[in-house]
Amino acid sequence: MHLRKAHELIEEIPSLFKKIEIEKPLIHHLTNFVVMNDTANLTLTYKALPVMAHAEEEVEEMVGLAGALVLNPGTLSREWVTSMIKAGKKANELKIPVVLDPVGAGATRFRTESNLKILQEVSISVLRGNPGEIAALVGQESVVKGVESVGEVSGLERMVLNTAKLIGAVVAATGGRDIVSDGHKIVVVDNGHPWMRTITGTGCMATTAIASFCSVTDDYFLGTIAGLVTFEIAAEIAAEIAAHQALGPQSFKIALFDSLFNLKAVDIIDKSKVFYLEG
Amino acid sequence: MHLRKAHELIEEIPSLFKKIEIEKPLIHHLTNFVVMNDTANLTLTYKALPVMAHAEEEVEEMVGLAGALVLNPGTLSREWVTSMIKAGKKANELKIPVVLDPVGAGATRFRTESNLKILQEVSISVLRGNPGEIAALVGQESVVKGVESVGEVSGLERMVLNTAKLIGAVVAATGGRDIVSDGHKIVVVDNGHPWMRTITGTGCMATTAIASFCSVTDDYFLGTIAGLVTFEIAAEIAAEIAAHQALGPQSFKIALFDSLFNLKAVDIIDKSKVFYLEG
Amino acid sequence: MHLRKAHELIEEIPSLFKKIEIEKPLIHHLTNFVVMNDTANLTLTYKALPVMAHAEEEVEEMVGLAGALVLNPGTLSREWVTSMIKAGKKANELKIPVVLDPVGAGATRFRTESNLKILQEVSISVLRGNPGEIAALVGQESVVKGVESVGEVSGLERMVLNTAKLIGAVVAATGGRDIVSDGHKIVVVDNGHPWMRTITGTGCMATTAIASFCSVTDDYFLGTIAGLVTFEIAAEIAAEIAAHQALGPQSFKIALFDSLFNLKAVDIIDKSKVFYLEG
Repeated sequence: MHLRKAHELIEEIPSLFKKIEIEKPLIHHLTNFVVMNDTANLTLTYKALPVMAHAEEEVEEMVGLAGALVLNPGTLSREWVTSMIKAGKKANELKIPVVLDPVGAGATRFRTESNLKILQEVSISVLRGNPGEIAALVGQESVVKGVESVGEVSGLERMVLNTAKLIGAVVAATGGRDIVSDGHKIVVVDNGHPWMRTITGTGCMATTAIASFCSVTDDYFLGTIAGLVTFEIAAEIAAEIAAHQALGPQSFKIALFDSLFNLKAVDIIDKSKVFYLEG
Repeated sequence: MHLRKAHELIEEIPSLFKKIEIEKPLIHHLTNFVVMNDTANLTLTYKALPVMAHAEEEVEEMVGLAGALVLNPGTLSREWVTSMIKAGKKANELKIPVVLDPVGAGATRFRTESNLKILQEVSISVLRGNPGEIAALVGQESVVKGVESVGEVSGLERMVLNTAKLIGAVVAATGGRDIVSDGHKIVVVDNGHPWMRTITGTGCMATTAIASFCSVTDDYFLGTIAGLVTFEIAAEIAAEIAAHQALGPQSFKIALFDSLFNLKAVDIIDKSKVFYLEG
Repeated sequence: MHLRKAHELIEEIPSLFKKIEIEKPLIHHLTNFVVMNDTANLTLTYKALPVMAHAEEEVEEMVGLAGALVLNPGTLSREWVTSMIKAGKKANELKIPVVLDPVGAGATRFRTESNLKILQEVSISVLRGNPGEIAALVGQESVVKGVESVGEVSGLERMVLNTAKLIGAVVAATGGRDIVSDGHKIVVVDNGHPWMRTITGTGCMATTAIASFCSVTDDYFLGTIAGLVTFEIAAEIAAEIAAHQALGPQSFKIALFDSLFNLKAVDIIDKSKVFYLEG
């Protein structure tokens, strides 16, 4: 197995990034209470428009206005899962991409089963989770503590590839090194910074980033990679700023949003570490 | 139609601003999950006291302790709307001002109808929304995308005036230029900064600002203008700081709160752009 | 009555602080919507792991993974209180410490009764509130406005001691000066800064700090003091930074988290103002 830099993918990202700003798609979130403010702000930072709406009475109508749907059962309840499935089915009918973030799958049976139910009833475009969450969904051994994946997942690249085949969607297992597969190709995204672990919701934010890109392209494999790369390059720039000023996690968080807002095409081209895994 | 600077209104704002600090009114919010932390912090930044409480079992008792009630169905559900109406009716009984923020009215039938139901059952003191939301409530054509008003609303000043007459409340349509009417007079508030669009919840925050002022004066027209002006001048000062340091939206947000906290009477007098629309 | 510096307690705090980083306990929160993001981030800043999970279907399983449980009914509803009791009972069965933050007890009957119900059905390890909230729970006169304690509570030290005896738990009444008792000893913690009142949720954050320490020691009296001291010393350092730069409450908040993240053992030893109240 060897890595080959994915220049052809990287070169497509800046124009997609610009396309979000021009089209201003609505990103409809059914997400958790912890990150709602952060992901709404992140959507605006990508120059898209956020809406958080979960009532069963309105999710179908709201998703009809949207460019992408985020399902993130991080603080789930039975009622919210029902609304997620309703929104997801409508999105499928309307050919709107659906990104699932299975927060804490594996931690409790209720979480694992709720996420599996969503996967059964809704056709997902992208599944983004940490390695432990994705392993839990496909029945592989993993250690999830609360909503954090702790410990290694063996054969991660193969698992991501196989999960993508199994569910017919793009799968991204993110962490220090992200593994993304569409069931055929495997890509490694090696951007990001350890400081991302010092704040809550970076996984959820990456999901919002992916949804923002998938709302402006039918190539969800590219959209997923673009979301991860832009978000993680902003984190790298933010970490430089925070380190330079000897600051901590919340200064880093502010700098992360600010850096993303100011991100230039040249930063994306120069800093992207996207590789095909081949052989 | 011409604009005449409303010196007599502007001059009253600093003493009201100080009055909030002295009386420390409780501002009872039934608001959305996205902005709860921001609006609680904003209430404190105005030196008032926030409380967020939505349970049907306690809203009537809680509003009895309050100086003003905010109803903001931004992440509504049937249960929360029921609680909003219950709290609103009690506030009416106790002569406590009620400020309604009809987030996303026009985007879905459920939102439009829920807001209309609140308007039917509760006597509102101030209605603050974006032009599209207010247009939707009075049945005028508008384009609302999620919770954002996109595109112009024709005859905005007349619509605001007529809506104020119709519902017997102060109406504020906010955006680049705010239009405020009590059904007789029309005022234009021309403060604020385009950076406000780069963060989520500035509309909801403006509503909290209005409620804070309406808790210390019976003149809700003045209270509405005072809330908008102080919040938007703080945004102008924050934008100067952020621009000077080449920063982004989250630095702007921090500076917005900090600037409001440190706002001086002289800033209010010097920077207020409040005009009567006459003719 | 006189104060004697509690050197022997202070000296134990740095190693406990380090122990959190090493063991990375999961802190399971059932908390309010206003502070969820802040308390999740604070947990990470203490280098522990947060999880927010409230569904009746999963709270028992989730608490089984946790090192401590936080119950904070700040935006309570009947369903959440039911889940809190379920989680609390399971924590009791598994000998996992439970920290209760009775937000707004005394403001409404529903809040007071819900907190009393939790106290009746769950064996609490630590009760942390403001003086008015604790007074309300033991039936003493107090003034609570929304979720804020306003006005003095007479005989505070004795009330805290007696409450601790009554409920068989550590009790901490926090404010300008914190009073902590285990029913035998009384300790005064005199750290912190008035700027803490300018942002929302510092009480809830202190509760999270206490839970983080109680997850790594069986001595909950020490754990409570350690949580208060570290959080409040970080606030002191942050206030110095913010004052030096002439900033406001949100800059202070950022600096509070950053300072806590960078807190050194020597800061804890040098700055702790912990005294036994004797005589």
